Amino acid sequence: MNAPPERPLAADLSAGLSALERTDARALRAAIRAGRHHAHTVGLAPGRVQGNLVVLPQSLAGDFMRFCQRNPKPCPLLAVTEPGDPIARELGEDIDLRTDVPRYRVWREGVLEGEVDDLRTLWRDDWVGFVLGCSFSFEQALLDDGIPLRHVAEGRNVAMYRTSIPTSPAGRFSGPLVVSMRPMTPAHAIRAVQVTSRFPSVHGAPVHFGDPAAIGIADLSRPDYGDAVDILPGEVPVFWACGVTPQAALIAARPEVCVTHAPGCMLVTDRLNTELAAF
Amino acid sequence: MNAPPERPLAADLSAGLSALERTDARALRAAIRAGRHHAHTVGLAPGRVQGNLVVLPQSLAGDFMRFCQRNPKPCPLLAVTEPGDPIARELGEDIDLRTDVPRYRVWREGVLEGEVDDLRTLWRDDWVGFVLGCSFSFEQALLDDGIPLRHVAEGRNVAMYRTSIPTSPAGRFSGPLVVSMRPMTPAHAIRAVQVTSRFPSVHGAPVHFGDPAAIGIADLSRPDYGDAVDILPGEVPVFWACGVTPQAALIAARPEVCVTHAPGCMLVTDRLNTELAAF
Repeated sequence: MNAPPERPLAADLSAGLSALERTDARALRAAIRAGRHHAHTVGLAPGRVQGNLVVLPQSLAGDFMRFCQRNPKPCPLLAVTEPGDPIARELGEDIDLRTDVPRYRVWREGVLEGEVDDLRTLWRDDWVGFVLGCSFSFEQALLDDGIPLRHVAEGRNVAMYRTSIPTSPAGRFSGPLVVSMRPMTPAHAIRAVQVTSRFPSVHGAPVHFGDPAAIGIADLSRPDYGDAVDILPGEVPVFWACGVTPQAALIAARPEVCVTHAPGCMLVTDRLNTELAAF
Repeated sequence: MNAPPERPLAADLSAGLSALERTDARALRAAIRAGRHHAHTVGLAPGRVQGNLVVLPQSLAGDFMRFCQRNPKPCPLLAVTEPGDPIARELGEDIDLRTDVPRYRVWREGVLEGEVDDLRTLWRDDWVGFVLGCSFSFEQALLDDGIPLRHVAEGRNVAMYRTSIPTSPAGRFSGPLVVSMRPMTPAHAIRAVQVTSRFPSVHGAPVHFGDPAAIGIADLSRPDYGDAVDILPGEVPVFWACGVTPQAALIAARPEVCVTHAPGCMLVTDRLNTELAAF
């Protein structure tokens, strides 16, 4: 099992986009739909919610939805489409899950079959789309609050680890909680608890800080996904539930077919990150 | 369509319970399971989360779960059971949805067939149970914060109204948002926004205050469900999304069969109300 990381390397692959397309969610989706952007969406349409995508046959959709309901910190559901309907009406104007993600991964029986730019030929009338909140939203809130994030400053992917904390299973879906880690001073960690508590639909407050062994992580320098970052003297590692959790559970369940976004190639919605704040 | 109110008249029908059974959630459920309490649960097992119950055949469970996902303020999902499994594992120790609610309502094609004390003979292996947060939890938080609630002081049911605000439909489920109303001074209303924002899984912050006509309510003195209360000089009506919303949508969808709790006869869980606080 090898789930895709939630965040890609920060190389800028969006040079072909216009200024409008880089900043306006609807224009960006139109460019993606027109086949002019197949790369990651980090930093594009600032302020708008970006989401993880999972597409599953309806026969497994109930199990997956219960899995998300039982594990809301790693699996925060932003939207679930009507069976067969690729339009995600609650997330913005004319959002088509078949065309509006820059790059998709197609999985058969839990094995990555390949990446495609468009699902129009693959889409089936029993497919259900799930859009889940991602850490981009809370990271923006942390940065806006003056809390530095080392992996962002260093242009790396965030470090992610499988833990010894089990998720609550549902139907065919189960597996360990995967966490992302950000090193912080205690003062920043305390503020980060406050800031991310406002955003329960994008992973919310941390699940742990300090001793990695307490949650089954043997070596912080060897993440299971993403890139390691240094932890400086006076800093503690702070761990958040991570969107790789449902992707790993999905792949481990070996559905006949499923689709996810390619790492970092997220669905860009019209929703504002600030709209997700609980208070 | 005539959905049951969320809260009953506060007559004390639990006189046959021991002191332990009135205060301990597990002992109370055991008494209910033993057939010794068929009445409402208002004020019992103080501090523990009580939930609305909906049981549906699996064929409609996906639609209903999407309806709840799209309308989280009126339909806050606390737990969804595995198809056929009556045990609500996430909500406490040995919670059996067939026996642990004091009184159930059985509906066929949207018509109330009758009330039963036990679902053991009716339960089917394709049934899925949904437990939804209810306003008891946030009302306790308001009372604990010194905010008086007139309907509680007067021993009445809260006043509930159908509004002109549509819910976001899913499959066969749709209908208007139903709200509950509590009159408050502006200072209490402001504090109530703060207090209830902490509890997104039990209806969260209000949806409106002031002019009832703005949300399609013609006459506050004539609630659609529950009992009217006076609004005193200097008070404004404050409106919260209400758990009658999904019950009304459920009944309007006319499922072949479904089960709900009888008004006020809630599922008493082991979860603490305070655990539901987002911060």
